Parts: sequence; C-alpha cells; structure tokens
Amino acid sequence: MRSFFLLAGFVLGVSPLIFGQNLPQEVDARAIRKIYDLALTESSCYQWLYHLTKEVGGRMAGTPQSAAAIAYGQQIMDTLGLDRVYLQECTVPTWVRGEPEQVRIINSSQIGTQDLHALSLGNSVGTGPDGLAAEVIEVHSLDEVEKLGRAKIAGKIVFYNRPMDPTQLSTGAAYGGAVDQRGLGAARAAEYGAVAALVRSMTTRLDDYPHTGAMRYQDGIEPIPSLAISTNDAELLSRLLKKEAVRVFVRSTCRPTPPAISYNVIGEIKGSTYPDEIILVGGHLDSWDPGEGAHDDGTGCVHAMEVIELLKKMNYQPQRTIRCVLFMNEENGLGGARAYWAASNEAKEYHLAAIESDSGGFTPRGFSCDADDEVFVQKFQSLYAWSPLLEPYGLTLEKGSSGADISGLKSQKGLLIGFKPDSQRYFDYHHTAIDTFEAVNKRELELGAASMTALVYLLDKYGL
Amino acid sequence: MRSFFLLAGFVLGVSPLIFGQNLPQEVDARAIRKIYDLALTESSCYQWLYHLTKEVGGRMAGTPQSAAAIAYGQQIMDTLGLDRVYLQECTVPTWVRGEPEQVRIINSSQIGTQDLHALSLGNSVGTGPDGLAAEVIEVHSLDEVEKLGRAKIAGKIVFYNRPMDPTQLSTGAAYGGAVDQRGLGAARAAEYGAVAALVRSMTTRLDDYPHTGAMRYQDGIEPIPSLAISTNDAELLSRLLKKEAVRVFVRSTCRPTPPAISYNVIGEIKGSTYPDEIILVGGHLDSWDPGEGAHDDGTGCVHAMEVIELLKKMNYQPQRTIRCVLFMNEENGLGGARAYWAASNEAKEYHLAAIESDSGGFTPRGFSCDADDEVFVQKFQSLYAWSPLLEPYGLTLEKGSSGADISGLKSQKGLLIGFKPDSQRYFDYHHTAIDTFEAVNKRELELGAASMTALVYLLDKYGL
Repeated sequence: MRSFFLLAGFVLGVSPLIFGQNLPQEVDARAIRKIYDLALTESSCYQWLYHLTKEVGGRMAGTPQSAAAIAYGQQIMDTLGLDRVYLQECTVPTWVRGEPEQVRIINSSQIGTQDLHALSLGNSVGTGPDGLAAEVIEVHSLDEVEKLGRAKIAGKIVFYNRPMDPTQLSTGAAYGGAVDQRGLGAARAAEYGAVAALVRSMTTRLDDYPHTGAMRYQDGIEPIPSLAISTNDAELLSRLLKKEAVRVFVRSTCRPTPPAISYNVIGEIKGSTYPDEIILVGGHLDSWDPGEGAHDDGTGCVHAMEVIELLKKMNYQPQRTIRCVLFMNEENGLGGARAYWAASNEAKEYHLAAIESDSGGFTPRGFSCDADDEVFVQKFQSLYAWSPLLEPYGLTLEKGSSGADISGLKSQKGLLIGFKPDSQRYFDYHHTAIDTFEAVNKRELELGAASMTALVYLLDKYGL
Repeated sequence: MRSFFLLAGFVLGVSPLIFGQNLPQEVDARAIRKIYDLALTESSCYQWLYHLTKEVGGRMAGTPQSAAAIAYGQQIMDTLGLDRVYLQECTVPTWVRGEPEQVRIINSSQIGTQDLHALSLGNSVGTGPDGLAAEVIEVHSLDEVEKLGRAKIAGKIVFYNRPMDPTQLSTGAAYGGAVDQRGLGAARAAEYGAVAALVRSMTTRLDDYPHTGAMRYQDGIEPIPSLAISTNDAELLSRLLKKEAVRVFVRSTCRPTPPAISYNVIGEIKGSTYPDEIILVGGHLDSWDPGEGAHDDGTGCVHAMEVIELLKKMNYQPQRTIRCVLFMNEENGLGGARAYWAASNEAKEYHLAAIESDSGGFTPRGFSCDADDEVFVQKFQSLYAWSPLLEPYGLTLEKGSSGADISGLKSQKGLLIGFKPDSQRYFDYHHTAIDTFEAVNKRELELGAASMTALVYLLDKYGL
C-alpha cells in the first residue's frame, strides 16, 4: 500500500520531487501535455473514422469494402510524411453471409410463430435454401453437450445459453468466459449429431441485436449451421423451453468461399539512432459486416495513424523506427497478422514494443502488457517507472493480454502492449449492426490517440 | 512515487499483506464484492431511471413534472424498508420557457436569412411577442464587454463566443472556465446598453444542440433576453462576422413566474449505534426542460436510492444514520438544498459525510472530497486508507469539489464528497434535448451505485 502522504502530494497538487526543475521528467511532462493538446484540438482521427465507417462501412476480409479500406489507409499514410508506405500481401479466408437469416419459433402453444433476431456466425455453413426445422435443446456449456450425449442431442438444434458473467468488472474477461460457446459450440454439437446450433449473443446487455463473430469446425465432423440470437430472444426461448418442447425453423444461405489475396497497410518512420529497434502501433482494418466496424476496429486503425500524425505535428524525429500497421483479417483467422509475423521473423526484426488498439475508442484507462516471463519483469519495470507521467491522464499499467495481431511477435522478446480503454460499453456494440460511427465519442477517441502517442514517445526516447 | 515492486503485487495479482487471512480488510473486500455483484445483477436503478426520464421527463422545479417526480421518489422510498420517508418543503423560483425560441440571421449578403438552434437561458426575460432585431457584436469575455464600453455595446446583441477549453482533461474544469458567460453575460451586456445576449453553448463538441442553463441579472439594471445558440451556429455566426456586419432577429416568450412551494424527498435508516452521525447520499430531482434530465440528474437520484436498496439486499444494518435525499431545484437556485441546510443546522445535526452524485451516470472513476481545511487532512486520511479496497473497482480518491446540494453542509465539519464518473461525454448531453434515457448505459449506471454503496459501507463501518 502506498504512503498516504507521498501520494497526497499528487492528490493535493504538490509537485513531487521527481518533477524538480530541469529534470528530464519535466521536459517529458511538457511533451506529453503537448501531445494531448494537439490530439484534442488538431487531430484528424475522427474524420478518418468517419470515412472508414460511413463511406466504406463493414469491411470483411476479401470484400470490395476491405479493398476500399486498404486503399484509404494507404492514402492517409501517404499524406503523413512517412519514410516508407507499402502493402504487405496476405491470404485471407472469405465467407459470404447470403440472404437475411431466419430463425423462427414455430407453432408454440404459448406464443405461436415468432421470428428471432439472428445472425449466422462467421465461417458457418448454411442450411440450404429450404432451411431446416427441429426441436431445440438448451445447454450452458460444451461439457453439458458431451454429458447429454448423442441420445439427447442427435437430431436437435442445440441452444447455447450461458450468459457473459455480468459481475466481472472487465467485460473482456466476461467475454472470454463465454465465447467458447460461439467458437466451438457448433462443432461440439455436431459431434453428437445435432442439426444446428444457436448461440446466445456475446454481451451482458439484454437487447434485440444479434452479435456475430467467428466460429470454427472440427476436422472429420460434418459441419452444421451456427447462428447467434439476440439476448432478449435467448431469454424468450429459454422461458419457453421451461414450458414446452419448442421447434425452431432455421434458414441461412451463408457459405465459406475460397481464400483471397489481401493486404496489410504498413508505414514507418526510420529511427535516427536505433533504426533496428521497432515500435509498432496498430489496429485491424477488417471488421464484421452487420455494422460499420467503428469500435472494432476502425478506432484502432485511426488511433495508430494518429500516433504518426501527432509525432509529425510535434516535429519529433524518433530515434527508433516507428511502424504503423493496419492488419487485415484479425476477425477471422489473423491472415494479415500471420503474414506480418512470418515476414518480420524472416527478416530477423526486433520489435522493442508493439502496441495494438483493439478494445474500442472509449476513454483511455491504460495499457496491458505481455512478454515472455524472462523479459517481462525488466521491461515492465522500465515502463512502470514512467507511471507518474501517465497517471495524470488516467493511465495505469498492468500485466495482461495485448492484442491478437501482435501476439505472434512474442518470440522477438520485446514487450507486447494492449491499449485499454474503458470496457463497459464495448460489448454492447461488438460485432453488431450498432457498431457505427455514432457510437464513438470524438474526445474519447482523441484521448486514446494521445495516450498511445505519449507511450510511444517515452518508448522511443528511453527504450526498454 | 510508489515502489514498483510493492505495487507490482497488486498488478501481478499477488495479494498484498494487508489482505492477509481474517483481517478486517478481507471481510470488507468480500462485502464490497457482494455489493458490486448485487448491483450488476439485481439492482432497480435502471428501471427507476426509465420511469423518471420516459414517464416523467424533464422536471423543472415547480412544474407538474417535478411534482410527479417527487411522488415517484417517495413511492420508491416507501418500498425500500426505510425507517422514515418524508417530504421537506422548500420555495423554488419558477420560469416558463414559452413558445419555441427564434434566433435568425437576417439578410446576410453571404447566407441570406437563416435560423440558428437556440434555447432561452433559465431565468431570462423574453423579447415580447414582436421580438427584436439588432446588430451582433462578438466578444470572448465579460471583461471585453467592459473594455469595449457603451460606445460599442449599446443597442447591440452581444454574442459571447469563448469556447470551453478542449485541452482540459476534466470537462468540468473546462465548463467552469467558460460558464461565467452564460451566468453573467447578459447582466454585463445590459450594463453597457446591449439589447440581448447570445451565448455559445457550454460543450467542447461541435453540434447543433443548444445547451440551456441558469443565468442571473444584476439588481438595478434592466434585464435583457439571453439565449444559448449551438456550437455549430456559434462557429457560423463568428465566421460570418469576420466578413460582414450581421443583424439577428431574436424572439422569445419566456418569463420568470412567481416562486412556488416544492419538496425534497428524504428517507433514512436510523443508525443502530451512532444515530446522530449522518451519512447522506443524494442527487437532485429537478432538471432543465429540453431533454429528460437523465444524466443531469436522474442518474444521481437513482444512484442514491440504489445505495439504500443494496444495503437492504445485503441485510446490512448500519451503525450510523444513512439518509437518502432527492433535492429539489439544484438547477436554478438550490431552493431545496437551502431548505435542507437550514433545517439540518437548526436541528444541530452532524453530517459525518455527504455524497452527491451529480456528474452523470458514466463509468465510475472515484470520489472528490472537500471539507474545511482544519478537518480535511484527518478525515481524508481515514478515507484514503481504504484505497486498496476501492482501487480494484477503478476508484480513486482526490481533493476537489463535491456537489452543489451538499456544499452548504461544510460548517458541520464533516466530509463532502462528489461521486466522479468519467467526465468525457457529460457535456455532450448537459442541459440539452439529448440528455435522455438512451444516453445512459445500464452497467455504467449500476457500477456508479455500487461505488457509492461501497464507500457508504466503509464510512458507516469505520466512521471518520
């Protein structure tokens, strides 16, 4: 526990000793203040986001929209005065949603016939044009399916209805505790002879928006259609199942399609003194299709590009190489990330640090850091020493996960860092039709860009 | 600066010594966890807010809506198992907005005739049914009006256009730095012969929503009409004024009306051991009229009542008296608060602590504490010692302002505490048509109620 009177210095506005005159920290404090001032008055990230969301829209990897996003990302980077801007080829899986999905309770003695709000999960096979109808069985885990076995599961539609735990303060942790149903539920159900899977949407909120997202099948087991239904409809279906056997009609014409060629967009400023030490900032350009991919992850892309714009506006010449990467296909296979890791490792690069913004554009709370155990303690300690410069902006540093697109860089022994904004609203929007530009607040977005830039400034100036 | 390795204990999930087995802190940590669990799964605050915003709506003191809100507040408290629920009479100023305001640029050579988005400021006089038209002069401060003097100001419409400073991290501080224009601008302009005042809306955001709020006149100077225009329209008007003289037509039929009798709603649980030590939780029932008074301050009212509900759900019998107060007329004169202070001081009461929630229903960040200097250090130190119990929930404690309704209790030598949620979005909604139920997030609201309850639990258990 910290000393009250020492910390009271901060609280009561008394400058602690480390901010004594002419010490480097004072210069750094001024530089960081300047970063925030510029971000909150002159940044372009909100207008870039407008284009990505309203002009381009949802950007599934391999679609024309993703190509438009790649062109737009390159076009912005070309204006930022980088030393190099290029596209990096990658292979991405593709999948077509097809016609609007139908999930319909049929001939219920309680409520008659009623449509539910549903979305096929990414990679799912369809039902064929005629759809299918079967009795529903509700379960709460993959293990429960195994326990019920073929006798209870075969021929049924398995309905996974374990909610995200609302008592978790971190909604990301609540998501992590429930998302196995979405990712693996259909495969497990198929193993025991189910004809389809319905999955409660991944959100703590009760509403009518179905949340899509990736699922995957298991080799050697015939794939079955898998769809998310809204949380309100999950509650409805669950209530109904307590009263009667329920038959549901499902129709979806989605289908996996052949892999396609796509691209990461990369731009960098070469470091003046340590060009071989790379500091990466990134987000992912692709999104799911129902909304506009605003918080997931338009905000991450414009955050990363805004870091470059702010450093340029500061006339800051980095000592280390600052690389901005807009990854393709985070949502459905990490095709872009895998290509990046392979090329980076092949070139024997060293990422001193990689920062990904992929948790939305909400008010910044800090950074979550990850590394191989052997390097974590030393590198995190260096980072942690900068806390007094970051805490005035509400930023704390903690150990935890970083970001999917940068996770494969761990072997390079640098620090992987996830930008952590406030998480409470993220899963209201995640993978839904309401993840739109309107859900992003301009100031909150700008504060995120400033936070990442402040950390990049310190990483570049002092190294790890 | 705190020790890295000591704090690393928190960060890395190692329990620090103070949480050793069977120490009181462990009991407290469990109790606080229980408070959050209940708030996030069983609380009523979101549905209460629905009623206050959607069924009652905007609640200006003295209106039928404010009476409906008083009845509803009492009705809820009657269900909460309090020892006493009562209304406390107060006198409130009243004011009628009248017909929709007109603020119109007329015969501009650049843009012709164009209506601006405007709202009369609370307490303003109207223009009379015929309206008035005059040339506009832009200023950026009260002092500038004085400097320009009667020669430049007389006969004109004075347009106050100093923006809230967007680089302030605390939007409350940015508001504090600009709101003198709204409160005192018209009075100052009238002093130098102006015929009306227009004020740039109090928000850092550029949009079309005018923000109303209280203004006041100066004795002995003839009042002139005063209206807010949206920030987009302030920018438009300012750009136009750089090119040409601009005449504006203003029509408003608002008018102050006679004071009315209204009420605070008060409920309390009598303390079992120290009944004379009062811990107050409160918000204000009244709001401005254009929206539904959701963040300002429906959320504060339901926060305060939720504290009671949560303590009851915990079967917690407080040692000290817990008093829930829904204040009337915070917005326009503190009529309810003044009545409360007078009665409390008259009865020689002692408020050990008073916590007001009047900064919106956003994700909690902590509490801001105020007291007479002589008592602050000791009392805040006691509070601060509980930080390890509150920090896991993102709550920090700092010196600062508390809340308008409780500010008059300072002479009782207790601690005044403002609940501080994230402030970035507050002034997007403040006093506008979009301060509605939809702007409030359920989880964020519930976390606020839990935060206040956790602090009340500690205050009650340990005193100050």
